[in-house]
Amino acid sequence: MKIPSDKRPRIVIIGGGFAGLEVAQKLRNKPFQLVLLDKNNYFNFQPLLYQVATSGLEPNSIAYPLRRVFRSARNIFFRMTEVERITPEDQTVHTSIGPISYDYLVVATGSMPNYFGLDPSKLLPLKSVPQALQLRNHILVEFEKALLANEPEEIHSHTNFVVVGGGPTGVELAGALGEMKNFVLPRDYPELDFSAMNIHLVEGADRVLPPMSQAASARALQYLKELGVEVHLKTLVKEYNGKTIDINGQAIPSRNLIWTAGVKAASLPGLEPAFGKSGRLKVDAYSRLEGFPNIFAIGDVAEMASEEHPKGHPMLAPVAIQQGRLLARNLLRLQRGQQLKPFDYFDKGTMATVGRNRAVADWGKLRLSGFFAWLAWMFVHLFSLVGFRNKLVVLVNWVYNYFTYDKALRLIIKRGKNQEEAFVETPVEAETAG
Amino acid sequence: MKIPSDKRPRIVIIGGGFAGLEVAQKLRNKPFQLVLLDKNNYFNFQPLLYQVATSGLEPNSIAYPLRRVFRSARNIFFRMTEVERITPEDQTVHTSIGPISYDYLVVATGSMPNYFGLDPSKLLPLKSVPQALQLRNHILVEFEKALLANEPEEIHSHTNFVVVGGGPTGVELAGALGEMKNFVLPRDYPELDFSAMNIHLVEGADRVLPPMSQAASARALQYLKELGVEVHLKTLVKEYNGKTIDINGQAIPSRNLIWTAGVKAASLPGLEPAFGKSGRLKVDAYSRLEGFPNIFAIGDVAEMASEEHPKGHPMLAPVAIQQGRLLARNLLRLQRGQQLKPFDYFDKGTMATVGRNRAVADWGKLRLSGFFAWLAWMFVHLFSLVGFRNKLVVLVNWVYNYFTYDKALRLIIKRGKNQEEAFVETPVEAETAG
Repeated sequence: MKIPSDKRPRIVIIGGGFAGLEVAQKLRNKPFQLVLLDKNNYFNFQPLLYQVATSGLEPNSIAYPLRRVFRSARNIFFRMTEVERITPEDQTVHTSIGPISYDYLVVATGSMPNYFGLDPSKLLPLKSVPQALQLRNHILVEFEKALLANEPEEIHSHTNFVVVGGGPTGVELAGALGEMKNFVLPRDYPELDFSAMNIHLVEGADRVLPPMSQAASARALQYLKELGVEVHLKTLVKEYNGKTIDINGQAIPSRNLIWTAGVKAASLPGLEPAFGKSGRLKVDAYSRLEGFPNIFAIGDVAEMASEEHPKGHPMLAPVAIQQGRLLARNLLRLQRGQQLKPFDYFDKGTMATVGRNRAVADWGKLRLSGFFAWLAWMFVHLFSLVGFRNKLVVLVNWVYNYFTYDKALRLIIKRGKNQEEAFVETPVEAETAG
Repeated sequence: MKIPSDKRPRIVIIGGGFAGLEVAQKLRNKPFQLVLLDKNNYFNFQPLLYQVATSGLEPNSIAYPLRRVFRSARNIFFRMTEVERITPEDQTVHTSIGPISYDYLVVATGSMPNYFGLDPSKLLPLKSVPQALQLRNHILVEFEKALLANEPEEIHSHTNFVVVGGGPTGVELAGALGEMKNFVLPRDYPELDFSAMNIHLVEGADRVLPPMSQAASARALQYLKELGVEVHLKTLVKEYNGKTIDINGQAIPSRNLIWTAGVKAASLPGLEPAFGKSGRLKVDAYSRLEGFPNIFAIGDVAEMASEEHPKGHPMLAPVAIQQGRLLARNLLRLQRGQQLKPFDYFDKGTMATVGRNRAVADWGKLRLSGFFAWLAWMFVHLFSLVGFRNKLVVLVNWVYNYFTYDKALRLIIKRGKNQEEAFVETPVEAETAG
């Protein structure tokens, strides 16, 4: 793939998410050659994907071109490609654009939806920008279809939404759908009866937002009810035929099953021995892969057991960022022959927003909810975005949405009959590998 | 398609572009029942599509949901559908979601690219939002591919761009590509040699911007040269194999042929007798279709001959808007038994922008160019956008682009291997027609 050899040791990073980006950022212009591989040419800020899906933000506002991030970094080479397999015996990553050798390999491939055996083609996941756009299109098209249906059951199947998974994504998405039902959609579709639109949130545990405090869970549940979301706790979805879903014996017609129930690590051929039962890569406190001395794994894909987290750390952005930052420092220590430092997760707190003026936050022993938690949630997310333009555009949209009770971006962007070519994946293939 | 019958006469409008939107806006809450049909659920501001294609603006900024426009209009019914044919004998429009009868029919279907016999699958058109997004993806992917190629000819075929058509769209696009070459891409791709990137603009007439003044054409040509665009006048592209293009005997390797050379009206089965040789619908000065007393055509699709424009008015947004406005008033006059008024085009002037601080404008006998023409161009376009949020977001982007010499939105949003469903058209089909 035409990357010049170099006397500096080469670190190949697979994945430009929170973890991979942090390693590369911290090793910018340091004595390594870095090769960053990602199947997309952008970093995306996953915590706000649900706002893209519900027409509140545009994908460009929460995504940022990776090449733009590393513009002034002369030691970083980015390649847009899919990794096919790894051959640790000759220290090579095999990709769709050819093989590349490494001195150190950092696996930061993140996680993907876990459908627990259900047919993915019937579910709507929300883990990537294309999925968020597809979900937006799907939601809007369902209302166009509802307008054309005659039978009540048929109409309800288009207007009922079932969100599976009561974690932050599920709660935030269900809340946003509740706001669309209350403030946005009735004005767009005066012909439809919105009392027939029901939003269900299904969670297997006995409360929503299980990783947060009891107080936060109770308050979030109250907010969801205020927005008209029906919450079903201790409930699992085991099958779905695409039209009707059984929730505790009640048959609910719905063509809209949004799946936020679980994630799993993406597998990576060649590293099989290091994958644990959970499907994540087992690493020690230095993010080193068991049995592979010069391979590291960080972020969602890594299962780093600790006293506090015997089954691995939670799959959260702050964990990924902190593991990336420490790994970058440890790689520098390794080069200098210094002793490595073990990972120690610093929990900055957890927040979730259900709707306007409705959010919950746990900061250590402090429990916050309501308007101030919501304001804090907005500022934390706004300042975490990459790029000044993105921050500004998101702020403009949020202020607009707040004062107009509107979500402005209700476009169904689709291929037309004579636009077969639009949106078709254009694969990047190697003309020559090297 | 479940639209209640009504004592008011029903006007069916096909197409929610500049012309159709204007008719519907002007008949808002007037004594008609209006049914607006469009294959998309949004209006798009075509003059700025080229900025979407060159990563300067997001599609949401230049498009606006049609339902949002007509929120407070109780007499307007919108349906997202494709029109299949018209049967004037029983006053019915047949669509993908069923038939609908009309008292008056307004055809405002606009125009589509005219490829003059070339293979469309090898060309990159720029007439719709999906095409603009596809062009953006294409441009960015070509540079990723250039990075992987070894042979100079192969590299050049990825980095050379040929824009066919020297009208406003072609000139604006070629200028924007010139700016990307000069200011944006070299920073993103430090490994590539940008002296090897050539931008060609091919035009059949003896000057660019043929409908504008000689002075404007000359100045635009100068601006294009300053930005490094090679302009080929009196040149036609007659064949293209997808890899190499022959321009005046010179073989130029390029996989990027952007087609802005011509448009034609979209045909509409059932109205064949009214289509002229030019492929447009022949109408009189009241936009009435020859031979069809209660059918009207406005905008690009209509060929309204006048003394000044014997071959029909130019296919421009101001013509479409003015024809739509007059038709709305004439329909009201028709209801009141008043005499109709004939169309009289008021030419407000023409503008085109080549790049930052570089624009040309003809206002009657006034010829303006440079910074002030550019500023005027920006203000006119900004205030023509639909919606306050769109105006604000476009302004933020333009100010950002101006001061940073950047185009922020360089995302390649594509379907991944496991995201087959993303961006696939979700057809709206009638469960029941009626």
